[in-house]
Amino acid sequence: MRNRVIEKFIDADAFARYLGIEILEVSKGSAKARLELKRHHLNSAGTVHGGVVFSLADAVFAVASNSHGTVAMAINVSIAYFRAVREGILYAEAKEVSINPRLATYTVDITDQDGQKVALFQGTVYRKRESIETLF
Amino acid sequence: MRNRVIEKFIDADAFARYLGIEILEVSKGSAKARLELKRHHLNSAGTVHGGVVFSLADAVFAVASNSHGTVAMAINVSIAYFRAVREGILYAEAKEVSINPRLATYTVDITDQDGQKVALFQGTVYRKRESIETLF
Amino acid sequence: MRNRVIEKFIDADAFARYLGIEILEVSKGSAKARLELKRHHLNSAGTVHGGVVFSLADAVFAVASNSHGTVAMAINVSIAYFRAVREGILYAEAKEVSINPRLATYTVDITDQDGQKVALFQGTVYRKRESIETLF
Amino acid sequence: MRNRVIEKFIDADAFARYLGIEILEVSKGSAKARLELKRHHLNSAGTVHGGVVFSLADAVFAVASNSHGTVAMAINVSIAYFRAVREGILYAEAKEVSINPRLATYTVDITDQDGQKVALFQGTVYRKRESIETLF
Repeated sequence: MRNRVIEKFIDADAFARYLGIEILEVSKGSAKARLELKRHHLNSAGTVHGGVVFSLADAVFAVASNSHGTVAMAINVSIAYFRAVREGILYAEAKEVSINPRLATYTVDITDQDGQKVALFQGTVYRKRESIETLF
Repeated sequence: MRNRVIEKFIDADAFARYLGIEILEVSKGSAKARLELKRHHLNSAGTVHGGVVFSLADAVFAVASNSHGTVAMAINVSIAYFRAVREGILYAEAKEVSINPRLATYTVDITDQDGQKVALFQGTVYRKRESIETLF
Repeated sequence: MRNRVIEKFIDADAFARYLGIEILEVSKGSAKARLELKRHHLNSAGTVHGGVVFSLADAVFAVASNSHGTVAMAINVSIAYFRAVREGILYAEAKEVSINPRLATYTVDITDQDGQKVALFQGTVYRKRESIETLF
Repeated sequence: MRNRVIEKFIDADAFARYLGIEILEVSKGSAKARLELKRHHLNSAGTVHGGVVFSLADAVFAVASNSHGTVAMAINVSIAYFRAVREGILYAEAKEVSINPRLATYTVDITDQDGQKVALFQGTVYRKRESIETLF
């Protein structure tokens, strides 16, 4: 599903655009993205900032959880970091673990360009009744 | 403690600078920061992006956990979101909850300019033996 | 508030009773409990089991989040462990961090009998509309 | 690997035994368990206690993370709950997501006897240098 409404939703994410996040795929309950690392994505140790890894994961989490067409808002997220990356491309892939009318939970795997695991993200959303079309 | 070494550590955080995060205070085990929200910090719903709130918290978490002078790396973080903010200034304050030679845990309160709670962040670092001066 | 309804709620927690958890205090949004450690609370390393520390915290989290009189169900919890305890008494104290009609978040501090921090628990509930009186 | 040492480790978990947890399978980095629900596993709402679900997951997390033969101690865990269960059998399966000499992360899927997802657990351990044989 890469329909007009979810496309508008993706285009409306100003911060994802500011970071350079590119959504690669979307289907009901899942999404994939990539981010090419630049110097301004690094932290004081010269490795990718925890906030960048999180934001990439959060962006696909938002797309996946809003892909059903109703507004989903993040309420809780946990992230575990495995590997410090200095350059190249990061990938994030969100999958739906559980969904009911009010709540849904997703995992997001973040990997580097060699397919090595960088971080694991687990997030829950509260699902509102309104359509995501009301956001624009 | 706002000594030369921790100042260098703060200045070296390229991503925090890219976002506009300003570190206001640092002492052993704690730190405070602010971020003035701009349009590019917003998500598809027109509210501040989860990744921005996280990154602000992560920046003070990094400063607080590296304030002892040895390198600390984030291994796990959980965040709960309470309130969608559209504009104004966000504040984040990190406090040390527990520390031993290898591990330390911090909480970070994120508030808006009216002092309303926006999110609660809880993070654990792995503490390496080397000085943060080796990073630069 | 240690009224008849919340008393019934506390008495109805079969697992808390099975573990030996004793609720010491309850007020709107907060609660306190203690657990005297026995040999059957220990893990393979001879220290208190992570599940025991969690269950003690979860019990006060349940009391605090249901103290408003409507049913609250845990949706997400994070716990960080600081210290391995072998014997004595554990205390847990839950505090409300944020509440709205549908969601509420609590932190629970777990300490040993010397007041040393043992773990930090952060949990979010989904708040249903029905009264806790409908549970019995 | 269901060798003598890990068998001793499993037998030494007094709390898992107290709850009735049965370890079904162990191999390097993974483990599986089951728990037959009894009335004393329930909470005030008459559904399985969050602490029971967590403890079952924590028990397989401990077995999986100690299966390499060196002592692993839990430092952080997050759990998301999806479904309230009233009776029957719960299963938990731990898988290793990432491991290095000092840290390792596991996910644990908890399901009911119909294979429905009950909860998702994500935990990180600190790996000590000593053998688990030193524990007994």
